[in-house]
Amino acid sequence: MIRAGIIGSTGYAGGELVRLLCAHKDVEIVWYGSRSYIDKKYAQVYQNMFQIVDAVCMDDNMEELADQVDVIFTATPQGLCASLVKETILSKVKIIDLSADFRIKDVSVYEKWYGLEHKSPQFIDEAVYGLCEINRADIKDARLVANPGCYTTCSILTAYPLAKEGVIDMSTLIIDAKSGTSGAGRGAKLPNLFCEVNENIKAYGVATHRHTPEIEEQLGYAAKETVVLSFTPHLVPMNRGILVTEYAKLKKEITEKEIKAIYDNYYGEEKFVRVLDKDQYPETKWVEGSNYVDMNFKIDERTGRIILIGAMDNLVKGAAGQAVQNMNLMFGFKESEGLELVPMFP
Amino acid sequence: MIRAGIIGSTGYAGGELVRLLCAHKDVEIVWYGSRSYIDKKYAQVYQNMFQIVDAVCMDDNMEELADQVDVIFTATPQGLCASLVKETILSKVKIIDLSADFRIKDVSVYEKWYGLEHKSPQFIDEAVYGLCEINRADIKDARLVANPGCYTTCSILTAYPLAKEGVIDMSTLIIDAKSGTSGAGRGAKLPNLFCEVNENIKAYGVATHRHTPEIEEQLGYAAKETVVLSFTPHLVPMNRGILVTEYAKLKKEITEKEIKAIYDNYYGEEKFVRVLDKDQYPETKWVEGSNYVDMNFKIDERTGRIILIGAMDNLVKGAAGQAVQNMNLMFGFKESEGLELVPMFP
Amino acid sequence: MIRAGIIGSTGYAGGELVRLLCAHKDVEIVWYGSRSYIDKKYAQVYQNMFQIVDAVCMDDNMEELADQVDVIFTATPQGLCASLVKETILSKVKIIDLSADFRIKDVSVYEKWYGLEHKSPQFIDEAVYGLCEINRADIKDARLVANPGCYTTCSILTAYPLAKEGVIDMSTLIIDAKSGTSGAGRGAKLPNLFCEVNENIKAYGVATHRHTPEIEEQLGYAAKETVVLSFTPHLVPMNRGILVTEYAKLKKEITEKEIKAIYDNYYGEEKFVRVLDKDQYPETKWVEGSNYVDMNFKIDERTGRIILIGAMDNLVKGAAGQAVQNMNLMFGFKESEGLELVPMFP
Amino acid sequence: MIRAGIIGSTGYAGGELVRLLCAHKDVEIVWYGSRSYIDKKYAQVYQNMFQIVDAVCMDDNMEELADQVDVIFTATPQGLCASLVKETILSKVKIIDLSADFRIKDVSVYEKWYGLEHKSPQFIDEAVYGLCEINRADIKDARLVANPGCYTTCSILTAYPLAKEGVIDMSTLIIDAKSGTSGAGRGAKLPNLFCEVNENIKAYGVATHRHTPEIEEQLGYAAKETVVLSFTPHLVPMNRGILVTEYAKLKKEITEKEIKAIYDNYYGEEKFVRVLDKDQYPETKWVEGSNYVDMNFKIDERTGRIILIGAMDNLVKGAAGQAVQNMNLMFGFKESEGLELVPMFP
Repeated sequence: MIRAGIIGSTGYAGGELVRLLCAHKDVEIVWYGSRSYIDKKYAQVYQNMFQIVDAVCMDDNMEELADQVDVIFTATPQGLCASLVKETILSKVKIIDLSADFRIKDVSVYEKWYGLEHKSPQFIDEAVYGLCEINRADIKDARLVANPGCYTTCSILTAYPLAKEGVIDMSTLIIDAKSGTSGAGRGAKLPNLFCEVNENIKAYGVATHRHTPEIEEQLGYAAKETVVLSFTPHLVPMNRGILVTEYAKLKKEITEKEIKAIYDNYYGEEKFVRVLDKDQYPETKWVEGSNYVDMNFKIDERTGRIILIGAMDNLVKGAAGQAVQNMNLMFGFKESEGLELVPMFP
Repeated sequence: MIRAGIIGSTGYAGGELVRLLCAHKDVEIVWYGSRSYIDKKYAQVYQNMFQIVDAVCMDDNMEELADQVDVIFTATPQGLCASLVKETILSKVKIIDLSADFRIKDVSVYEKWYGLEHKSPQFIDEAVYGLCEINRADIKDARLVANPGCYTTCSILTAYPLAKEGVIDMSTLIIDAKSGTSGAGRGAKLPNLFCEVNENIKAYGVATHRHTPEIEEQLGYAAKETVVLSFTPHLVPMNRGILVTEYAKLKKEITEKEIKAIYDNYYGEEKFVRVLDKDQYPETKWVEGSNYVDMNFKIDERTGRIILIGAMDNLVKGAAGQAVQNMNLMFGFKESEGLELVPMFP
Repeated sequence: MIRAGIIGSTGYAGGELVRLLCAHKDVEIVWYGSRSYIDKKYAQVYQNMFQIVDAVCMDDNMEELADQVDVIFTATPQGLCASLVKETILSKVKIIDLSADFRIKDVSVYEKWYGLEHKSPQFIDEAVYGLCEINRADIKDARLVANPGCYTTCSILTAYPLAKEGVIDMSTLIIDAKSGTSGAGRGAKLPNLFCEVNENIKAYGVATHRHTPEIEEQLGYAAKETVVLSFTPHLVPMNRGILVTEYAKLKKEITEKEIKAIYDNYYGEEKFVRVLDKDQYPETKWVEGSNYVDMNFKIDERTGRIILIGAMDNLVKGAAGQAVQNMNLMFGFKESEGLELVPMFP
Repeated sequence: MIRAGIIGSTGYAGGELVRLLCAHKDVEIVWYGSRSYIDKKYAQVYQNMFQIVDAVCMDDNMEELADQVDVIFTATPQGLCASLVKETILSKVKIIDLSADFRIKDVSVYEKWYGLEHKSPQFIDEAVYGLCEINRADIKDARLVANPGCYTTCSILTAYPLAKEGVIDMSTLIIDAKSGTSGAGRGAKLPNLFCEVNENIKAYGVATHRHTPEIEEQLGYAAKETVVLSFTPHLVPMNRGILVTEYAKLKKEITEKEIKAIYDNYYGEEKFVRVLDKDQYPETKWVEGSNYVDMNFKIDERTGRIILIGAMDNLVKGAAGQAVQNMNLMFGFKESEGLELVPMFP
């Protein structure tokens, strides 16, 4: 049994982490950090936790926390983790950062897209990008894991085998993404009010969304080339779920069977990646509450393009679930421990 | 490890039963019955079960099933279970019926409200009404359990302690209930289409809903008098959840503390009933996906009434979860086995 | 053509007023008041008004406004209208107040339920309660109209004929109300976020909601007795619509036809009140976007109660539509001018 | 005052046509056709029309209808209009067909994508594609108008100016579209149930959707070249609204101002096309209930692409509203008559 602390436990991602860790047999949460609710009972912030979590919220003291726990999760705004982490802390505790601070290897790219000065660039090199299906080996030994973003996890995993195998022309890749509203966080902002989101769909961050360079970097490693792509997120009137629709030109003629074989080769043994049967396309509802990413593809002979579709729960595989999967790898637990969640339908 | 069969496994309640039993360590589902989808892969009916359930759907053959399993769940339209059950079957297997066939002790009441002839009235007496918190002892020894309805579970549990203790005037009891749409089932009917339900709320079954006599019977046992009450269900544009708002005159002056003590006395040890803190009212979202019933009350001195509010997930505590809880009791498993589900928020 | 000014034009009720007045042939809006958005283009606050409204938002200067317009609408928080209105203003301009400031005749009741000191009690007597179907004659001559609340309009109109005719026992009246989320306003508050409201239903203001005394006062006038009732509002995951379910004991045996005759007698000539056909119950979707209140009833012989159900659009008949209807009466326009809106379905 | 008949008046598009025509000062509906509801009161099929429409539903007899009305709207499944229309009918009455029967000039393309034999190919040439902003002149003289599809109206209008001016490389055009559920019609089908659509998003008709050739044909006329493009529709949990996100390579460097000038040149005088201000992107909620198409664009210098976004109400500009606009043109009414609808928010 290890001890865990969560900094930012009262955001939606933090709340999901609590939900998952409460059902994890090898972990005990001992620190519910939340700057906004210090000294308030956690179960008063999230009434679903009544009679399940008895703790009160604590502050963000990472130094003290490092003495008390084995792993720290930071589910906090950009910049906070980078401003707190130190060698003395990392020497005592493992950190899984759910923010973007250590996801991008080129600090100037980070600083440009996020409009922030990076406060601890010395750890960027060491940090492992925590996309478990891709970087499993490195994650096992990491002290600091950069847990991927929600859009990025779905976007990257869906395209990864084809990028890696050189099947698609990366310069033609377009990712049109659709997300539920929990991705926007629990801040009390007018655009996230029920009446503004309900019965509505919109694009946002058009050609400027911060997840773009993260996707480009990771798919660049796969394709072994610099990747520049279009990424457009949309806000959908639902709580959870991300769907990505990706378009790319095929480099050469290839059959459906061959593509399927490539996917099976990469993901056939992966518990949390489900490549669907022919003509069955992913829907976010089919993965809700679970750690699965569902995906499939369609070759369009008329246009010479392949269309890839991926779906997952943004709060699970797109945030807290993946963080737990990383933790399992880092501590030598069974990788799926605490994550064998059957999707909830309807 | 026992073996279970589900007749009606492709309705929403049946699907939820599959979700719960898949995560139950003492049970294996060996029969996925579904008249509508015989020979079709279960995971093609419910794509969330892809790579989780590999079975194909079977017919409704209860006789054959009785030879293969230890427990049969019937999540079927009214009348089906009653038409299939026989002494030869009950002598081999335990049955948990999620329909209304064995819930009402007076067969004429059943036949009047349901407009059906009861096909096996000889088992009505034996059947135990499976409201676990009330009938725990009897359930343990039952061969045939009548799993309560969704509206009824929430309505009864919320009022039970006050009815039993004689605190409220039962002739004044009014139950105004609100349900998510999964309660209407998976039948392809026009009133259940997205565009008809979304952005809409309506009452239905006004003064005629079939769950009325079931609530009256059970609260009548508690109050030790004949109960006649008003029950009005409403359809709410959400997938899951039932909220009941109950109104009754207090028989005498009583303090909030005294009422709270009554509730605590009945439910203080109950894992799945959560009596909330003062001024905190139940919301369906706080119990979604879990087996909890949340409840609270408000004394209104102006009117001399008490207002009771209860919330639960209609597919879990209101159907499949309670069925599993009954099964656990019947087979001597830990009562909460497979039901330690943390509510999912948001 | 008269000139209108709106104080509080950027809340949801204010926005709806703009929508309705834009299509009204006898009115021109010349003042879009909004403390929060002074000098901002109105169409940037409400993008639906792009190329329809070219004006910028103004401050709340009622004195200056009184010199420029014929009618002022105040769609503002409680207390603001009362703090601004003066004899010099009322001598120049008619005021339709969408807040609660002048709805309640007993100032101590107002101050108790609203927790505010009333700043201009001298106008309370003069103010006419603007429920058009009830107070039509007085509204025509009013300088100051107190536009009824959303819950109250629906609750009162649905019960009014039976209260007036002495058919129901007023001491048994219970109103269980359900509202869409636009009723909560456009303030950026956590409980109104999409993820908190969606897939959820809850009661609030249990036994303490401010609309209670307003309903009691008006139904008291009808019944010619002091009325004390239970009123419980619920928040429903939809943008618009209010449904009320009302329960009361019948004083004597009465047939359905007799009740229907009473309703027809009161509302047969009313354009905006639709008493539905037998066994057809109101749904909020059937009135969305329109000024209609739909209603119907059910006699429940088992309990001796009558159940009344009413539905309307909270932003139209429950706020802006009724305000326009009041304006039409006050200025001698056709009562339905600008309000002949066909409900939008789906 | 002209007389109109609607064949298929009880589908969602037909219902919307009724809503719009009820408020049109120059038209009277005299025939509410509906095969499914013959002899039933229209207001019992659509309860919103209670006390507004008194008529009963009629059959689909186009011959008899032609003698009674000036214009026939067919809001029916594919193939029906083509199977009924004849020269004797067209000589007496104008027809606006909301189905796809006469939208595609190449009958073999129609028959291939729709899987139907075309029953009256002799009228295809004569039929005018009723996209008012593009074909206004021809529509005025038409006897038979093919009213465009919902996805197509939004997709074509959004890209049209750039296609026509040769600014974008048509071979790179990708249209990712998102639609509310009313586009799926009022048929009682399992995939359209509330619980299947709510909290879910999915792609469908991937690389095979029937609106594809219609968009290709029309944009081909604009670009004066054969266009083959990718079109992927998605189902969104909302009642109304279509959003299209379009991606294309720019043929040459061009400034934002130049693109804006092109749009203004085409649509500056168009009442129902709103090109939004810089950095303001369309949202479906901002056009709900109205005949507007909102659009805007973003040049992405990193990728050399332009991203176009368009939004409209699928039942208004995407179906019934455009049909009324066509009717206005064909009968010499003011083009916006009956269509000056302010979008409803929220």
